Order: sequence, then C-alpha cells, then structure tokens
Amino acid sequence: MHNPVIDILNDVYEQCRPDTAGAVADYIPELSRVDPDSFGICLATTDGFVYEIGNVGTEFTIQSISKPFTYGLALADRGVAAVAARIDVEPSGEPFNEISLDPDTERPRNPMINAGAIAAAGLVVGDSAEHRFERVRQCYSRYAGRQLAVDEAVYSSEAVTGHRNRAIGHMLRSFGVVDDADAAVDLYFRQCSLIVTGRDLAAMAVTLANNGRHPLTGELALAPELVERVLSVMTTCGMYDAAGAWVTSVGLPAKSGVGGGVLAVLPGQLGIAVHSPRLDEHGNSVRGVQACGELSRRLELHFLHVPRAARSSIRSSYTVVDAPSRQRRSPAEVEVLQRYGNRARTYDLHGDLLFAGAETAVRAISAQAGELDVVVVNATRVDEVSTVAVDLFAALSRELTRLGRRSALVDPDGAFGDTGRGDTMLGDTASFDESAPAGERPVFVSADAAARWCEEILLDRYCADGRTPASVTLAQHPLVQAIPAAHRAGFVAEFELRSAAADDVLVRRGDRRAGLVLILQGKVGLTLPTDAGAGYPMTTLPAGTSFGELALLTDGAAFGDVRAETEVRLAVLPADRFELIAAATPAVALALVRRLAVDAQEQLEVTVRAAGVRAGGVTVTGRSASERTGPATTATEGAP
Amino acid sequence: MHNPVIDILNDVYEQCRPDTAGAVADYIPELSRVDPDSFGICLATTDGFVYEIGNVGTEFTIQSISKPFTYGLALADRGVAAVAARIDVEPSGEPFNEISLDPDTERPRNPMINAGAIAAAGLVVGDSAEHRFERVRQCYSRYAGRQLAVDEAVYSSEAVTGHRNRAIGHMLRSFGVVDDADAAVDLYFRQCSLIVTGRDLAAMAVTLANNGRHPLTGELALAPELVERVLSVMTTCGMYDAAGAWVTSVGLPAKSGVGGGVLAVLPGQLGIAVHSPRLDEHGNSVRGVQACGELSRRLELHFLHVPRAARSSIRSSYTVVDAPSRQRRSPAEVEVLQRYGNRARTYDLHGDLLFAGAETAVRAISAQAGELDVVVVNATRVDEVSTVAVDLFAALSRELTRLGRRSALVDPDGAFGDTGRGDTMLGDTASFDESAPAGERPVFVSADAAARWCEEILLDRYCADGRTPASVTLAQHPLVQAIPAAHRAGFVAEFELRSAAADDVLVRRGDRRAGLVLILQGKVGLTLPTDAGAGYPMTTLPAGTSFGELALLTDGAAFGDVRAETEVRLAVLPADRFELIAAATPAVALALVRRLAVDAQEQLEVTVRAAGVRAGGVTVTGRSASERTGPATTATEGAP
Repeated sequence: MHNPVIDILNDVYEQCRPDTAGAVADYIPELSRVDPDSFGICLATTDGFVYEIGNVGTEFTIQSISKPFTYGLALADRGVAAVAARIDVEPSGEPFNEISLDPDTERPRNPMINAGAIAAAGLVVGDSAEHRFERVRQCYSRYAGRQLAVDEAVYSSEAVTGHRNRAIGHMLRSFGVVDDADAAVDLYFRQCSLIVTGRDLAAMAVTLANNGRHPLTGELALAPELVERVLSVMTTCGMYDAAGAWVTSVGLPAKSGVGGGVLAVLPGQLGIAVHSPRLDEHGNSVRGVQACGELSRRLELHFLHVPRAARSSIRSSYTVVDAPSRQRRSPAEVEVLQRYGNRARTYDLHGDLLFAGAETAVRAISAQAGELDVVVVNATRVDEVSTVAVDLFAALSRELTRLGRRSALVDPDGAFGDTGRGDTMLGDTASFDESAPAGERPVFVSADAAARWCEEILLDRYCADGRTPASVTLAQHPLVQAIPAAHRAGFVAEFELRSAAADDVLVRRGDRRAGLVLILQGKVGLTLPTDAGAGYPMTTLPAGTSFGELALLTDGAAFGDVRAETEVRLAVLPADRFELIAAATPAVALALVRRLAVDAQEQLEVTVRAAGVRAGGVTVTGRSASERTGPATTATEGAP
Repeated sequence: MHNPVIDILNDVYEQCRPDTAGAVADYIPELSRVDPDSFGICLATTDGFVYEIGNVGTEFTIQSISKPFTYGLALADRGVAAVAARIDVEPSGEPFNEISLDPDTERPRNPMINAGAIAAAGLVVGDSAEHRFERVRQCYSRYAGRQLAVDEAVYSSEAVTGHRNRAIGHMLRSFGVVDDADAAVDLYFRQCSLIVTGRDLAAMAVTLANNGRHPLTGELALAPELVERVLSVMTTCGMYDAAGAWVTSVGLPAKSGVGGGVLAVLPGQLGIAVHSPRLDEHGNSVRGVQACGELSRRLELHFLHVPRAARSSIRSSYTVVDAPSRQRRSPAEVEVLQRYGNRARTYDLHGDLLFAGAETAVRAISAQAGELDVVVVNATRVDEVSTVAVDLFAALSRELTRLGRRSALVDPDGAFGDTGRGDTMLGDTASFDESAPAGERPVFVSADAAARWCEEILLDRYCADGRTPASVTLAQHPLVQAIPAAHRAGFVAEFELRSAAADDVLVRRGDRRAGLVLILQGKVGLTLPTDAGAGYPMTTLPAGTSFGELALLTDGAAFGDVRAETEVRLAVLPADRFELIAAATPAVALALVRRLAVDAQEQLEVTVRAAGVRAGGVTVTGRSASERTGPATTATEGAP
C-alpha cells in the first residue's frame, strides 16, 4: 500500500530538482568527473526503515562528512578532556581550509574545519598507519552498516595535491597539536576518500540519531554520552560558515562535504542524507541545503520546534473510593473504605518522564500529600524515564516516608529500575507481606495490586471493629443465611467440606462439575487465561463469599481458573445436588439465586466504576448502601 | 511538603557560590556599584511555577539580554524577510562590540552583537522616539509579566560614554542598515537600561519556552512562529564568542549580559535565569555559565539529549474479536463477528505525534491494511498532534479509501481538528448513520462507538442470513422461550406491552419498581451517571434482549439510566407480579433466572475481554460456543 511519506519526499525532490545553481568541486580532477545533475534524498528512521528517491545508490567520496565520525572516534580513544585540550569547539567564522589556529588558545577552533579534523585524525589510536586507518574504516562501516572502501584514485590525487592540508598539518605539529604531521594528514586524506552512497550517509545519520547504535545491525558505533558532543559540534560548526542560517532555517545537527553530500540528524527520530554535487559559495550542496530546509519545514523537524509546552505527566488520579481493588470486602470493611478511601490516592503517569513533566507531577503530588495516608505512583503507561525523573520520584518517596506517609510504585516494566525490585515485586494474585518496613517503597506489577495494598493499610489503620473474620462456619455463611429458615438445615446437609493448601488449583476453566463453592476460611483468586500465558486476574475472594454460581446456573463450564491464595476451607454444593434441590424445592434454589444476584450487582458496580476510572478518568457516581440493595435482601446479612 | 527540585537547586547554588573568579563590568561607574558576590538562580516552569534560591530579587540592568527581545519585536514589526535583509544570523567569531560589518553582505553578522542589536532597535516601529521605546518597554514587560522601568542613571551614563556604539550606529547608517543612527543607538541604550531581577529574567525565559506566551498572565509576547527563529539565533550567537562551548556543555538557547545575568531556555519545558555580576573574558557571568552547565547536566536539559530513540506511537492494536463493542448481538451475528471480526482492527496511539512516531504508525498500519476491511485509529491517549502527523493520517485514510477500505478516527478531544467534525461526531450512545459516504472518515468519541461501527460494516458485508430481526413477538422472545412450555401462556399473560419514542427515558437510576423489561423492537441504551454529568455508556440492547433483571432479583434500585435509542416496543413484567410468580410457581421464576444467567455469563466474558484488551493489551483467550453454555440452556434458544 502506498505510503504518504513517499509523496512528501517526492514533492521535495521535484521542488529542488530544477535548481542547477552552483558548481561541482574540481580542485582534483576525480571530483569533477561526477554527474553534476545526480540528485538523491534518503530518510532513515530509528527502526531501520529507509525512504529514498533519486540517485541514492550513486557512489561518491565522503570528504568532509567524515569529520564528525573521526572526531567521535578520537573522543572514544582519548577521552573528552584530552581531545578538548587539542581541539576547541567554537565556530570559526572563517573558511574551512584556513591555515590558522585560534591566536589565544593555539588550538584549531573546531573539529569541522580542516585544521581540527586533521588534529582529530592525529588522535586516533593504533599501532601503525595501516592499523589507524583500518580502525577509522571499521568505525565508519559500523555507522553505515556495511564495509566501506577507499576510492584509491581520489586518495592518490588528494595526497599529491593537498599542499594546503600539509601546511595545516605542519602548523599543527609546530604548535604541538599533532605528534606526526604527515601521518595525521595522510589519515585525513584516506578517511575523506572513503566511498559512500546516499543510503550509507542516511544510515550513518540515523545511527547518530539512534544514540550511536545502528538500527538494523544493532552495533554500537559511538557511546551515547559522546553522541551528544558530536551533535553539538555539528550544530554550531557543521555547515562551514553558514551554521547560523542552517540552524535558523533547518535546525538539525548536520555536516556537508565537497563530494556533494549533506547529512542531517534529528536526535531520537531520524537521519537524512542528500547527495547533489553542485556546491554553493560556502562549499555546501545547493540542492542538499534546499532539500534539508524543505524536509525540516514540511516534517516539522527543527530541533527547537515544540508543538506545545510540556504538561504534567499525571494523566489522572483517583482514590480507592473511585477505584477499589478487586478484593471483595465485608460490609464493615466496605464502609471503612468508603469513609477513609480518599486518603489513598493513585497517580497515573504517562508519556516520557523528562525533567519538566516529572517536576510538575512531583509538585502536584506534594501539594496533595497532606490529605493522604498513602500515595501510589502508577508508571504503567510511562514511556521513557530520565535519570532525573527517577531521582525526583525517589526523593518524593523519601519525603513522604519522613512525613509518616506510605508510598508505592506500580511499574510492571521496571521503567524506574528499582534496586531491590525482586524482593518487593508482587504478583497481582500473589499474597504479599503487609509488614514491609515503612521506609521502603514497594513496587507492584498492577494498579489493582497497589490498590489492595492501600486498602490493607487503611483498614489496619481505621477499622476499629477489627477486620473481616478469617473464617466463618457453614451456618454463618451469608448464602446459607439467605435460605428460608425452614429449609436451612436440609440445605446445609447437601454440602461437602473440603480444604486445600495455598497455590492449589481448585477449579480449572472449562470444568463443568465444579458446583457452588462457599469459602469458609482463607482467600481464593480467580484468573482468566490469556494469550500471553499468564492469568489475567479477575478478583480475590475472602471467607464468607462464594464462586461457581454462574456455571451452576447455566450448566456451562467454569469461566476461569480458581486458585487458593492461602490455605483454605471450603463447602461445596455439587452441581447434581443443586439440580435435585431446584427440582424438589425451587423456592430454596430461587432464594439462593436472589442472594447471589445481590452479590453480582455489587460486584458489577465496583467493576464498572474501577474500569471507568482507570481507563478514562471517568468517575461513576457512587450509590448509597440502601440504593444498592433493597430491604428484603439486607435482612439476610444479619448475624446468625 | 519539601520539594526535591529545591535540593538540586540548592546543591548547584552551593557548588557555584565559592567561585569568585572574574570581574564586575566597570566601563560605566553605575555598573561597578553592584555587590560582586550577589548570586541568584531562578527556574520557571511552563505552568508558571518558580523555583528560586539566593538574591533573585536583586535589581540589575538587562543590558545585552535585551537583544533577543528587541530582535523578536523587529521581526514582528517588519517581517522575517525585511529584518533578514538588514541583519544576518551567522556567529561572528569576533568580540560583541566590534565596529564592523560582514564584508560580503555589508550587514551586521547577527542580532546578538552590538551592531546587529542596534540595527534591530532601528527597525522597531513607532511614531516617535518615545513611542518606539514605550513599545519596547511594553514588549519586555509582557515577557516579564510586570511593568519594567528604566534605570535613568545607567541610561544617562551609557548615553554619555557610549562612543563605540555611536560609531557602530553611524557605520550602520553609512551602509544604509539604519535610517537614523542616533535614534537607533539611543533606543538601544534605553532598552539596555531596563531594570530586571532574576525572577523577571526567568519569566522572560519561560515565556520563550512557552511558545511566546507568559504562563501566568496568558499574554502573548511573541508569535510562536517567530520564537523558533529567536531561539535559533540565541543558540548560535547568544553567548558571545563562547557559543560552541555553551552548546556543547549546556545545550540551551541562551543570552548573557554585562549586568551579570544569564537567561537560558529549554523549549517547551522551562526557563532559567542566573544573576552573578562577575564576568569571564567573554563577558559572560562566571557563576552564570557554571550554574547553567550544572543544571543542564543534573536535570538532563541539553536540547540534543534524548533518553532513547522514538518508538512507534502505536500502543496496542486489536480486532473486534478481541474487543467487541458493548452492543449485544444475536448468536448468528456473534458467529459472523467471530469469523470476520479480525478484518476490523483498531490502533491505539499514544504520546506526542511528531513526525517519527506518526510515520512509524502509518507504516505499520499500511503493512497490515491488506488483510483488513476497516481500520480505526484511536487517538484517545494522544497528547499533542503535529501538523505533519495530521497530514500523514489523512493521507493514510485517503489511501485506504482508494483501496476500498473504510477508516475512522476516535478523537474525543479533537486532537486531529477534523473539519466537518460536528457532522460526523457521534455520541457513544447516539444512533449513527450507517450510510455515511465511503470517502469520509467518521470521527467517534469512544473506541466502543467505533467498534460498533466496524461491526455494522462487517455484518452488512458478511451476514449472509440477514441481520438480527428488527423485532420479535413476545412469544418469540428467548426469555419466554426459556419458560417450561406448560407455564408459558400464563407467564406471557402477566406482561404489559408498552412503546416509547427515541430518546425517551425508560428507567431512571434508583427506580425500584421498573420490573423486568423485554425488548420486542428497537434499541435501548444503558448508561451510568458520572461526576462529569454525561452518562457513562454501559451497553446497547437490541430486540430479543431484556433489562431490569438484577434490580428485580435483588429488590434493589435500577443500576443506571435506560433510554430508548430508537422507537421501541417493550413488554414489561412488573416487579410485584414477578414476586407473585416466584411465590406461586418458583420453578418458572428459576427457569427465568437461569436463562438470564446465561446472558449474564456471556456479557461478563465479553466485558472482561474487551476491558483487558483496551486497558492493557491483554488478550483473554476466547472459549468455544459449547464451553460458554451447556446443552441444557442452548436448547432454549430454538425457534418458537
């Protein structure tokens, strides 16, 4: 199917093609032998896709576009400080081939003029001239993603005629910037004679955009911390003495060469290469400059362009009243959580967490923390987390601890890279240690697990009447209480008592004969199988609740897997006995079903509300307890 | 509560404070009277929050920091081309006060050296000297968010001693760059004498970061399209002849002044101001340069720094098999959608849609389009959409149409700014025109509405046996069919027939006596009230389904609002009659409940799967039809 980016590239190509101004470099005959009308544009993305139009396979010598790559190699070989001691990073305001150093520093002004480039070549490490050049060639080849070769004719011609560069080499030697003038100049001639195509340059550009790593081969051509420095120098010095106009109208770190190539980089996004041999008065490709400007304008690539100001990285926030966990709670617990649940708040973050977004989020959370007992930062939807964002949130957590608050992180992808994560990472359905020391920031894999942790903290703190009883007798179970008194004893007699150990699977999805199961002690987790293999957690059920009712009523198969989260005691009404009861005393079965419907309605309400809040920030209005269930059914909740 | 950013600012402050190198400017006595040890740092965010430490309220004259602001005013007054004809944008490599023009262009090299700044002042429009200066002062005051005033002593002193600038003025006059040398130079002296504090400079910086708009006053100080040009010139020329080192080590567009101020801008994110009067050999504040470098390093502010390469903006994608709409479907329709639902795919986008992210998404969708009939682009979670992204997705849509595919957009916030949006915008529960012309790209407010539209297209295309009958008789209704044959006639007799017009509210949330309602004709929508007022849509029910069962069984109140989406015919079993049936013939009530349970289980399954897919990309494994319901219940689905 047709890709619209091709149309844009095509437009730009057709727009620039008629411009035949400028002249091909002819200071050596080999350079003047190219087709002056050759024109190609390549755009490569950081996932390795390449858009191209025109003569993108035409070979030419890399010339000055080599300069940032050798500079990067010198930085890697010698370190930033050692290189900075010999080569400055200031725009020169002079022609690229000036035989002069900065009078104050006695250094070449920058590595993009010939003096700086020869100095950089002199800093490449190696045992011999051959070894040093082979290292340069291998380095460029890593950027290009294929083995590059030298145009020996161009090299010979440059070596024979390059007196000006030899003069620069000896000047550098006389000021102690290079140790061996001939070796440095010769290496420079050879690197300039490496043969590339537009496709190669686009690959080299996008490797810089991709933090130094070739998108397809995965090879690291330059350490990420050095990429920023190379791109900085390209920004201020890459386009000879037209850097200001370039930054203003194109706004991309770039480098041009007299071979007619222009290479431009939008960090993190893409690499552009244009080849067209006719040069302007600065030595830049006429159509190269024009095409880059058009692409920047049409694709909005200027590095100072921002479509809008950064916003807070908080997508939404909600309390455990708005979005309770899937853990079922007793009425007493539900009441406590309704009352105090607004003291536990989850903040959903999104987007890239750079400084500005992280700062605004931390500030917003800090402003609300006075009214909270528990703060959960949910990083599930975060893309990339900068180091400073990690630090800011860690500091927030420490400050919350200092003020007696608890805080936790939801970070299923490990974006915050917490150490000790292995210890504190909690499976959604796994039981967890509620006695974790107050100073720690536990990390959860889901917002639901964190909500459950919040609820436990609030219940421990505010549940004056004590927590849900760990166990009920069969006679006390609310479902049994819902049966008309006259039938109750006979109903109870139909049940079978069972117990199971933690992690035992009680029912497998698809089971048809699981029956109705009442939980008398312990906790049970329901999960749905997913394509990914791991269970999608539905709910956790405590003592006093039940499962299996829908399969029982529909005579269908179990909907999901049921697993004991702790040691459990259960009472099971086998499916066939339910059928006997339904046939013999339909009133008993109906009473049972009506009690189950009350449960179902409450669960539906909680589920819908939590889903609305977590998915779209929609807060569904809560209903009062009397709205939720009528008088007839609340009567069944009385004590035995 | 303590904010961790303050700690970082404090660290940087303490780290730079001991450095007392450099000398206060003393070319006029007024400048030398400042406290050389005064030191303040301010950091302002694009939402108007200001972090500050040290002497941020100390007043000083703005001096050369005025240059970008007057340049911006000249651009606004005269247009980019007219200004470019008189002032270039190239780094000069010369001292800021050089009395020279570029020999080739006969223009000042850039607006950040004195020659260029005086030329810019000469371009400010106004009726008189007073008027022109008042316009400059008002302009700066808009950036600062408060009225700024002139230090008359500094102004007088500059005016008396500024021979070098007068020389520049007359040189500019002689080359025709300014029309009135004295007026331009005098305006320049006055603008340099405006009094600011560190807080003011931070506000001015963040106004540039905020695309020209002051974050708190909301006033536009500079048109967004000019902000990029001003920041570009600051990048290459803002720090005198230390621009290269500045870009390399700080990487922020910036401007310094001999008053000791430094202002730096991270576009879209923040503004920084530092004031410390001792200057280095370039004329930049020693501690200002140092503090900006430290802040950039610690807060990761370098404009070429990217934490990682751009990724596709597709967060997840799913078909209508994975995530069906909430519209209930007949078994025949469900089967068609199971079979052909993978021909309608929704792509959830997220993050900022700049070129690279949009390109990757469009490419991925294009690659899959061959296997699809319908493509939905869901922009619900998108933050900002660049113009080029809008164009790329519009082109994708046109290409899909050309290939006979349908496409739609989910864009509740209007991020794509579709024209004709008012016409095609569809409420989630509103009925919609299924005959929309194929060339249009309808825009939906929710993924569910779009999924429903996809299903309608697939059903129209692949449902050989025809669509769900628009109506059923009461006797044909599946719930009635579920009642044992012997009791059926008596059961039917208990119902009351009703009809209602489109948009009629049938049941209000909280109603206790709605009864069980069977839909015989038309469509009915269920919504939950939300805090925001608008209903949160639960589901749409066609003929052959029912509602009110849960409230009936629990004797509770209705869970949500129920509204007729079309003209409807209904059969209502009042709640009190249900109670009579339950008491007299519990077997009938139980049969009814079991049939409802089958429905409930199917709905639960669909809901859980759709929620899992849409929220987290979890695909819950589907079950076969026989797994979903057992033989006992499927028998009730036979024809009457």
